[in-house]
Amino acid sequence: MTGKKVIITGVPGVGKTSVITESIRRLEEEGVPYQSINFGTFMFEVAQKENIVKDRDEMRKLDKNSQKRLQQLASQAIARIDGNIIIDTHASVKTPVGFLAGLPEWVLKELKPDLIILVETDSDQILKRRLSDTSRIRDIEGYQDIQDHQDFNRAVAASYAMLTGCTVRYIKNPDFLLEKAVEEMVQVLR
Amino acid sequence: MTGKKVIITGVPGVGKTSVITESIRRLEEEGVPYQSINFGTFMFEVAQKENIVKDRDEMRKLDKNSQKRLQQLASQAIARIDGNIIIDTHASVKTPVGFLAGLPEWVLKELKPDLIILVETDSDQILKRRLSDTSRIRDIEGYQDIQDHQDFNRAVAASYAMLTGCTVRYIKNPDFLLEKAVEEMVQVLR
Amino acid sequence: MTGKKVIITGVPGVGKTSVITESIRRLEEEGVPYQSINFGTFMFEVAQKENIVKDRDEMRKLDKNSQKRLQQLASQAIARIDGNIIIDTHASVKTPVGFLAGLPEWVLKELKPDLIILVETDSDQILKRRLSDTSRIRDIEGYQDIQDHQDFNRAVAASYAMLTGCTVRYIKNPDFLLEKAVEEMVQVLR
Repeated sequence: MTGKKVIITGVPGVGKTSVITESIRRLEEEGVPYQSINFGTFMFEVAQKENIVKDRDEMRKLDKNSQKRLQQLASQAIARIDGNIIIDTHASVKTPVGFLAGLPEWVLKELKPDLIILVETDSDQILKRRLSDTSRIRDIEGYQDIQDHQDFNRAVAASYAMLTGCTVRYIKNPDFLLEKAVEEMVQVLR
Repeated sequence: MTGKKVIITGVPGVGKTSVITESIRRLEEEGVPYQSINFGTFMFEVAQKENIVKDRDEMRKLDKNSQKRLQQLASQAIARIDGNIIIDTHASVKTPVGFLAGLPEWVLKELKPDLIILVETDSDQILKRRLSDTSRIRDIEGYQDIQDHQDFNRAVAASYAMLTGCTVRYIKNPDFLLEKAVEEMVQVLR
Repeated sequence: MTGKKVIITGVPGVGKTSVITESIRRLEEEGVPYQSINFGTFMFEVAQKENIVKDRDEMRKLDKNSQKRLQQLASQAIARIDGNIIIDTHASVKTPVGFLAGLPEWVLKELKPDLIILVETDSDQILKRRLSDTSRIRDIEGYQDIQDHQDFNRAVAASYAMLTGCTVRYIKNPDFLLEKAVEEMVQVLR
């Protein structure tokens, strides 16, 4: 298919969505349209269409093999879409029993991304942003937990680069400098 | 096969065996039995059964391809075992010429682990534990060597997660807090 | 093929070439000959021979698939060479849009390296070496950029170890101690 396939990741609280939304708006203005797909939502829609699940709740209860097949189906469907695509997902997910690769081999082999972006910032800033965000209930994580998560994301992204040949880019989104993060992302996606 | 396949790793001196032994004892009490397999020992037994070697000494002299085939045979045999299994091995082995992945692709593809646990602690604590342990002769390693080894383990474990879809969990085993390490492991394995 | 296949990597300014040249000279003296191949140059020669490109300029303009095919052809040709080989390349390349794996899966599967060496030193030393080297025009990078690049190299090298079973060795090349770096490399390559 023509167009770039860009995967954008970042730990909860890093402000990934703000950077994506504003970057897409600017790129649109510049005549470089990107379609944004949330991988989780897209997978759920595929699951409904294929009659694998009826609601979100059933998604969480899928056994490992069904989940794997579903990830593969969703990846194949995304790979068939024409034009520039941003795939909004996680480099890794922190579960109660450890880190899970957001983009395991069977997803990467189908998606064939051109670029994986890690939106990052100082783990202490992320900690404070999470503490101030009273709208969401999150598990309590300390500075070191967030740091470990960001470090794991870098490590796993390196293995994604080895497998797919995609480039891996870190984009910082520090406090008060969203503007700079957006500029950098626009430059990379242009 | 039914049951969980959990790989437990950690650099020499981190106290991996103590954590495993005590965790298995508690899980047994709780009615969640785990069988523990030492990957090296298991591989040696397979090699004897297949008439590939007669003793441990011959194991070390095997050429690269025989070793690879043996790792594969052992992994297939473990994959056929029913029930919950702990595989006691190394995320990476430090050899005189560098780090060797303890779980290369051909092992992972057969084992299909659900979870890889990295038992870790502060590299300085590991250094002191090694210096106090006069029962074993080990190569002298400094703080930075141990830190590099633990860091390599985290990096290589991330690539294991990408290839297999397993979760990766760090469990700390600091001085005086074995009890806490065991509790955490029991919670993850339950 | 017989002989060792050793990949030697390092960020620009780390002094990789000095260490390689002097190590090969000593190994030659000791009767352990190594042939050194620059991966980029070798790939260009293959591209010329196969009539894929006429000059270096065309190399940079190749589309992704042609580049991939070329990398594969070059790797296959290197794999057919007899004797000990040093492959001089990069663990990762820093491009304007991010890090690119120097040794993606399709290269590793053909090359089947025995060993990957990362020549490293303190990022501040690399920074100063680059600033003093007025003979080359390089993009300006700060301490953190160089540190991120060296860290990415370690992470991606771990994934190379997982895929190929090769060992990964860090060799330090600090200021005033080239001699020590060479000694260490000779010991590993002997």
